[in-house]
Amino acid sequence: VAVHLDDLSTPALVIDADAFDRNLATMASVHPGARLRPHVKAHKCTPLAAAQRAMGHQSFTCATPREVVGMAASGMGDDLLLANETVDPVRLRAMADADAMVTVAVDSAETVRAAAANGITACLIDVNVGLPRCGVSPDRAGALADEARRTGLDVRGVMGYEGHLMMVPDRSERLAQVEAAMALLAAAHADVGGEIVSAGGTGTFDLHQRTSVNEVQAGSYALMDTHYGRQGLPFEQAVFVVGTVISRQDDWAVADVGLKALGMDHGNPSVVDGTVWFCSDEHVTFATERTVHVGERVMVVPAHVDPTMAMHEAAWLVRDGEVIDRWPIDLRGW
Amino acid sequence: VAVHLDDLSTPALVIDADAFDRNLATMASVHPGARLRPHVKAHKCTPLAAAQRAMGHQSFTCATPREVVGMAASGMGDDLLLANETVDPVRLRAMADADAMVTVAVDSAETVRAAAANGITACLIDVNVGLPRCGVSPDRAGALADEARRTGLDVRGVMGYEGHLMMVPDRSERLAQVEAAMALLAAAHADVGGEIVSAGGTGTFDLHQRTSVNEVQAGSYALMDTHYGRQGLPFEQAVFVVGTVISRQDDWAVADVGLKALGMDHGNPSVVDGTVWFCSDEHVTFATERTVHVGERVMVVPAHVDPTMAMHEAAWLVRDGEVIDRWPIDLRGW
Repeated sequence: VAVHLDDLSTPALVIDADAFDRNLATMASVHPGARLRPHVKAHKCTPLAAAQRAMGHQSFTCATPREVVGMAASGMGDDLLLANETVDPVRLRAMADADAMVTVAVDSAETVRAAAANGITACLIDVNVGLPRCGVSPDRAGALADEARRTGLDVRGVMGYEGHLMMVPDRSERLAQVEAAMALLAAAHADVGGEIVSAGGTGTFDLHQRTSVNEVQAGSYALMDTHYGRQGLPFEQAVFVVGTVISRQDDWAVADVGLKALGMDHGNPSVVDGTVWFCSDEHVTFATERTVHVGERVMVVPAHVDPTMAMHEAAWLVRDGEVIDRWPIDLRGW
Repeated sequence: VAVHLDDLSTPALVIDADAFDRNLATMASVHPGARLRPHVKAHKCTPLAAAQRAMGHQSFTCATPREVVGMAASGMGDDLLLANETVDPVRLRAMADADAMVTVAVDSAETVRAAAANGITACLIDVNVGLPRCGVSPDRAGALADEARRTGLDVRGVMGYEGHLMMVPDRSERLAQVEAAMALLAAAHADVGGEIVSAGGTGTFDLHQRTSVNEVQAGSYALMDTHYGRQGLPFEQAVFVVGTVISRQDDWAVADVGLKALGMDHGNPSVVDGTVWFCSDEHVTFATERTVHVGERVMVVPAHVDPTMAMHEAAWLVRDGEVIDRWPIDLRGW
């Protein structure tokens, strides 16, 4: 029996299969194969990763040990990068014991020692290219690589995330700033050695055709959100949280998609054909030009896709209004 | 073998058992027994609800059908209120079939019909007392109650949530506004009948000693957050997300508690002994006066407790640094 979009209980995380397919094709045409290391944190969903892999991308980026271990358990362990630091011996050991080639980011003597002591065999030197987060300063990258090699780690290269530049509105200004940040990464790479220069995200994905970066860590491109949607990128909105109108008053309506179903760090979501007033735990209050009725479906577009995915147990893959698959968001947690 | 707080993998949701116990005792002294209908949405955790029940509160407020069904399955179905509207026949039926006395909020002919058609036997008329969300306007409450009774529903009374007043900074101004809102609810109650007048939350809990409200729906009081912490309430911060410092640079440190571990709709969390710069998916970047080291633990205080709880699989109950229990956050989802 065919299940229709309107049969789903709400709030329901829904992926538009056609838009999703087009997004994957667009990215693969710019960054084929290993030029893209898709970031699993954007979706935390192994069936979605498998679709990326079917497009030719066999190496993946992860933000948490659970993402690494889960990708390995799903048979996608060819080349997994934990693009993040950890000193947790239990989780480092779990990654080392996974059926996978695992590389971790390191940016300090402590993270090098913890990785080597718990069975990890390969690392990238994480370099600060301007975002005040993890990453060693470029002038200390070479020394850290030497230290990592002394502990027996294979230093495969460098990574540096220019997250502070994803939303620079003007494209030429963004390009100039990305090139300056990647010059820092290239200088560190000259001191570090190794084959990998890994960086980038959805907001800068095509700017790396002109840098020394040889793999891009984009993730949000597959599903998109309103925040990236304002950037003029060639990707379509492919994920929605479908809600049901549960209350209708004189000037507003209320649907059952609240802030527990939406990443809120980038602000309120959008409602298709409506204007959002505010979100509560389990509600979105919005106004519309037209009359909406209790029981009617509404499409809510998240402002930030990554945390939105992490709030749902599963996503429903939909084509022409019919549900064609249920994808568990199986890499949630840590 | 005793498990210490420092043995937990991070991010770890941790409840300070002593502070939690004191919060429950403080609330029970103001609103004993059925005067408090604790709101399950604030924690989504049946062991925590069981602790509230052990303090004498046997009726509970829920925001989702899953909370209702889960509370019933845990043997706490004496008197469960879904303080929210739904027209979902599957979920209404699941609540009706639960081993519980279930009452649902209704604010329209559609929600009345859906409840009655799917086995629900009791309702409260949800009245708009000023927050633009669910709730019928007070002058239409009596007619809706008549309609509900015609369908066979037992109309137990009224509810009205003054959520827009929780954060009015001045206490006397807050009291005046709450009294005005509750006058609307009292007028609706006169038209509706029934025994229950249900309202309130943590921010207004003690103001209802002077209104006609006979049960208060507070939830956040048990664990608290920085948002309510600024209100001068007699409750202590009892929940933290414990993180590990994974990177230390010249002017800042980074811990592994990001926005996927924190409700962000009220803004950034706080870090004990630190100043938060920003959160990323899996990181909080912060500055400190003192030197922190990679591997050190930090305590992060969420800005909004309800969505924070919903992001974690379990909470660790801690007393004097020792882990004394693991409480699953078992009512997540919808």
